[in-house]
Amino acid sequence: MTTLYLVSTGPGDPSLLAPQAKAALAQASDIVAYGLYLQLLGTDIAGKQQHNLALGQERQRAQLALELAASGKTTALVSSGDIGIFAMASLVFECLDRAQQGLEGHPGWLTVDLQVIPGISAMQAAAARIGAPLGHDFCAISLSDLLTPWELIEKRITAAASSDFVISFYNPVSLKRRWQLEKAKHILLQHRLPNTPVIIGKNLTRQDEQIEVLHLAELSVDSVDMLTLVQIGNSQSRHLHQNGRDWVYTPRGYYPMESAT
Amino acid sequence: MTTLYLVSTGPGDPSLLAPQAKAALAQASDIVAYGLYLQLLGTDIAGKQQHNLALGQERQRAQLALELAASGKTTALVSSGDIGIFAMASLVFECLDRAQQGLEGHPGWLTVDLQVIPGISAMQAAAARIGAPLGHDFCAISLSDLLTPWELIEKRITAAASSDFVISFYNPVSLKRRWQLEKAKHILLQHRLPNTPVIIGKNLTRQDEQIEVLHLAELSVDSVDMLTLVQIGNSQSRHLHQNGRDWVYTPRGYYPMESAT
Repeated sequence: MTTLYLVSTGPGDPSLLAPQAKAALAQASDIVAYGLYLQLLGTDIAGKQQHNLALGQERQRAQLALELAASGKTTALVSSGDIGIFAMASLVFECLDRAQQGLEGHPGWLTVDLQVIPGISAMQAAAARIGAPLGHDFCAISLSDLLTPWELIEKRITAAASSDFVISFYNPVSLKRRWQLEKAKHILLQHRLPNTPVIIGKNLTRQDEQIEVLHLAELSVDSVDMLTLVQIGNSQSRHLHQNGRDWVYTPRGYYPMESAT
Repeated sequence: MTTLYLVSTGPGDPSLLAPQAKAALAQASDIVAYGLYLQLLGTDIAGKQQHNLALGQERQRAQLALELAASGKTTALVSSGDIGIFAMASLVFECLDRAQQGLEGHPGWLTVDLQVIPGISAMQAAAARIGAPLGHDFCAISLSDLLTPWELIEKRITAAASSDFVISFYNPVSLKRRWQLEKAKHILLQHRLPNTPVIIGKNLTRQDEQIEVLHLAELSVDSVDMLTLVQIGNSQSRHLHQNGRDWVYTPRGYYPMESAT
């Protein structure tokens, strides 16, 4: 039984890569990933057979990973962040599900030993860099309507906005998708104040990291690209300046409780 | 300027502890934590001054950590999971905020160099162990009404249930709080089928790990304790059996799109 590791490589900083992920990469003879992630791994995967499939070839990547493992090659399928969060893990299980139903692949896929290794997702990297915005109930929503009808995404944004979740938006824009973030902002402003803190994070934990805090009213599609993480504070989130740093945190409620007793 | 590290130690398995967290623990002379976490760290913090404050003494722990760092001692305040998610980081920033306003502490706190180190939260450890339940939009809700009014928690559960988020419940019960999970289940059943997959995870990634998949209709307070993570699939989540393993995944939408075109 050959192992297919579904490996999370975290936000980019090698010091945030778990030893378990590193060990899985070391064990694999074959690495399947989108090219940018292969570059980021650098020497960790030197000498291994690398299978670089472009963005948009997600199904092919999942199928190839199952195929390599089914053929006896210890394989690692790699996503940055957490492979379980808006990344490749779910698709591998969907392929397996379809193979069980005879819809694709072959019975060899079903013999593969699957191991999922979690990692630090972009929302956590942004949160740690800027303080503690995820300190209370939160949600994560992908703004990509390539695979999900916009009506459902809008329903989720409205639900999260009206019940005061901290919200992380993944995939806020792409070259072709420009209006979704503006629409989300419009919905949010019906439920939150214009000065609600918003965190914009790019290339988190990497050398060219950019992170800024702005007001919800200032959020614009021009400050965001495909790889940006956008985090919206809840009604209680606060923006502080200390020691030349900007911090945003969302209180859990320790102090209001004190004053109420 | 002395550093106060806010350190996430992940779900428990040392191979999921990031090198950055390990390095921060190594640099600190003083470690502040709840005793159970100190035990889990074991040799990583041998020879250091350990400050063990009980559950319920969260404010004292945050204040002590700021005080130690302000007095010139490199300090690590430790939470399991991700310190930014339902843990201590937010409270430290709240104390800092109050110190700036002159409500507590003293100006020495404001000189501390704060560094937050993210980690793998329980929802991610559970997800990785059981497949990919967080494969689409998700939220995390604490069921503890000690610090948050139940009305707000219920509003969030209803919003998340009706807009089909995958939901992770933190703090589902305590010795004194028994009815909240039952109430949450009641709300969920108004929006999801009785056979919706639910994941129950305890001591995730540790030697005594327990994880099981059941139907929403079977969810009971008796199968859950204070340290359990409860994860509710969305309407599309699927439960598979493969190679003697139970898997749950939430599809992202790759295949419906294909059949629609």
